[in-house]
Amino acid sequence: MATNFDSLGEFGWISRLQKAIQPTNKSTIYGIGDDAAVLAGTEEEYKLLASDMLVEGVHFDVRYSPLKHLGYKAVVVNISDIYAMNGQPEQIVVSLAISSKYTVEAVEAIYEGMLLACKIYGVDLVGGDTTTSPAGLSISIAAYGSVKKDKITYRNGANSGDLVVVSGDLGGAYMGLQVLEREKSVFLENKEVQPDLSGHDYILERQLKPEARKDVIEMFEKMELKPTAMIDISDGLASEAIHIAAQSGMGVTLHEEKIPIDPSTYNTARDFNLDPTVVALNGGEDYELLFTISQSDYDKIKGSPHFTPVGYITADKEVYRFVDRQNGEHELQAQGWDAFLSKNKDVKGDKEE
Amino acid sequence: MATNFDSLGEFGWISRLQKAIQPTNKSTIYGIGDDAAVLAGTEEEYKLLASDMLVEGVHFDVRYSPLKHLGYKAVVVNISDIYAMNGQPEQIVVSLAISSKYTVEAVEAIYEGMLLACKIYGVDLVGGDTTTSPAGLSISIAAYGSVKKDKITYRNGANSGDLVVVSGDLGGAYMGLQVLEREKSVFLENKEVQPDLSGHDYILERQLKPEARKDVIEMFEKMELKPTAMIDISDGLASEAIHIAAQSGMGVTLHEEKIPIDPSTYNTARDFNLDPTVVALNGGEDYELLFTISQSDYDKIKGSPHFTPVGYITADKEVYRFVDRQNGEHELQAQGWDAFLSKNKDVKGDKEE
Repeated sequence: MATNFDSLGEFGWISRLQKAIQPTNKSTIYGIGDDAAVLAGTEEEYKLLASDMLVEGVHFDVRYSPLKHLGYKAVVVNISDIYAMNGQPEQIVVSLAISSKYTVEAVEAIYEGMLLACKIYGVDLVGGDTTTSPAGLSISIAAYGSVKKDKITYRNGANSGDLVVVSGDLGGAYMGLQVLEREKSVFLENKEVQPDLSGHDYILERQLKPEARKDVIEMFEKMELKPTAMIDISDGLASEAIHIAAQSGMGVTLHEEKIPIDPSTYNTARDFNLDPTVVALNGGEDYELLFTISQSDYDKIKGSPHFTPVGYITADKEVYRFVDRQNGEHELQAQGWDAFLSKNKDVKGDKEE
Repeated sequence: MATNFDSLGEFGWISRLQKAIQPTNKSTIYGIGDDAAVLAGTEEEYKLLASDMLVEGVHFDVRYSPLKHLGYKAVVVNISDIYAMNGQPEQIVVSLAISSKYTVEAVEAIYEGMLLACKIYGVDLVGGDTTTSPAGLSISIAAYGSVKKDKITYRNGANSGDLVVVSGDLGGAYMGLQVLEREKSVFLENKEVQPDLSGHDYILERQLKPEARKDVIEMFEKMELKPTAMIDISDGLASEAIHIAAQSGMGVTLHEEKIPIDPSTYNTARDFNLDPTVVALNGGEDYELLFTISQSDYDKIKGSPHFTPVGYITADKEVYRFVDRQNGEHELQAQGWDAFLSKNKDVKGDKEE
């Protein structure tokens, strides 16, 4: 009997793929399983290659995503994977599939956004492919970069006792999406009502025009800090923390009271009757960096407004714990937005392999 | 007034993009404008990066494309761009967008085909991204490889007097598609009638499961032949010959009587009341290599069953000529299957930047 693809979770699918694939070229240092593939470079450095696709109706809605922002975000999402290896993105190639409903001006706006992101992050757009699409718009980008061999940071290097640290704050992108979806519903029901987006600038920007944490990689360099493991937060804190722990053969414990949430995210979640912690744990799309450091490196990040320790790595393999404000212990679950379980258009449906 | 994107041809679009984009990283050796981007590698070699997207309803029809073949073809199409630089592909990353109509078994068949191509061509699948799609299937692949610095072959190196040479034969993939489309129409009109594909093995394979000319690159190595310019034939001989001539600042003249056409392609074209020469000039998707060589290298390919000289490069900038069997001269036109002019689903709608 045929198995519906939706019934196979992303975790299951990736592990099946990994087993099926044995790299054969000596230039393949590390294949499937991290934010980017690691390839042979020079004596001093590795090359990094990652790819991601954004699909209309799954990852974005052009009714409220300005196309310039969309192009910008498509680049950011991809180069974020290179930063997550502690590397520097240098080039991207772009494949666009475009239906005939789009005008030249629309496509130019997308490219304008992509080129703006390229400029800001110091990346060159070096090629790609444009094609028609029977319906909708898809943007597929491959990001390429390099990392010094002694700086490369995989997901699988976390050790027992390491601190789990997150940059910035979490849940904003998800709450921005909720605001946009609410105003869209209101508008669709009554076209006389103008969307009310006031007061939501921060979370709207987190959703529509996120930034990748290039600055964090630069701070690591200055602070002489090398994380033991790192991943970018595309699917939510819970899912990414479990990725690091699982791939490191460790366990992880997160503390609710430590999770950094911006007041505007917090207040909007409350207005929507959502638990801000759940939003931060599972919201995704924040493109912050989640990393682990040796306890002896704690002094390097202590007091920094950019970094928040949210938990620690344990030797309890496959034990993923969440401690709430009342000190209650729960199992941490990667509810994430699993590519093949989430059916709602307003939750993100993809997952990096 | 908004310009419909379809009204801007691909040539126009690429040149607009190229003007807008100025590479800033010293690791970018050559950006948009060839089969692959050329990036800094080691002392001896460059790295190559190319991407291509195949979209259901534009590039393939799952009603007659076996999914395993489709996966195979998606890889071949991409690594062909690396061979077209006289390079060797080493890794690919794959982004798949999949609608819920596909089963796990279907997706596995696609991956099986991709992994078979990887095995045959010595390429590693090192990562990517899987996502849901509201409708249909898209496969976006980035191919990565390397080329010795003294072997790299751009499109823009052709000189006046150079011979224009093609590998294999042309037009087969297009006629294979015509047979498939005809049988589909017959079947859709009367579901009692079984498709009749007999006797068309060669052209069907050219369409459904093409090969990239890795062997040609190996022959160049053995023959100590370095083409002056090269491109792969994805859009048709006419379009690709003009690409080489235009980017080299030259003209080109092709001779009808020289164009290699397999008898089965020829006969099927006749059955369809199509001119076999037009099919070979504009059919596309053959993934043969079109290259130019210095006349002094002619002895190296003379008599080879793999190579056919079809014309020569002239100093007449922007003059693209076609000489028919009656010695009549015509303007050679890149009718190709321009990404934004072709509306029929049965002609291919993309173009490499």
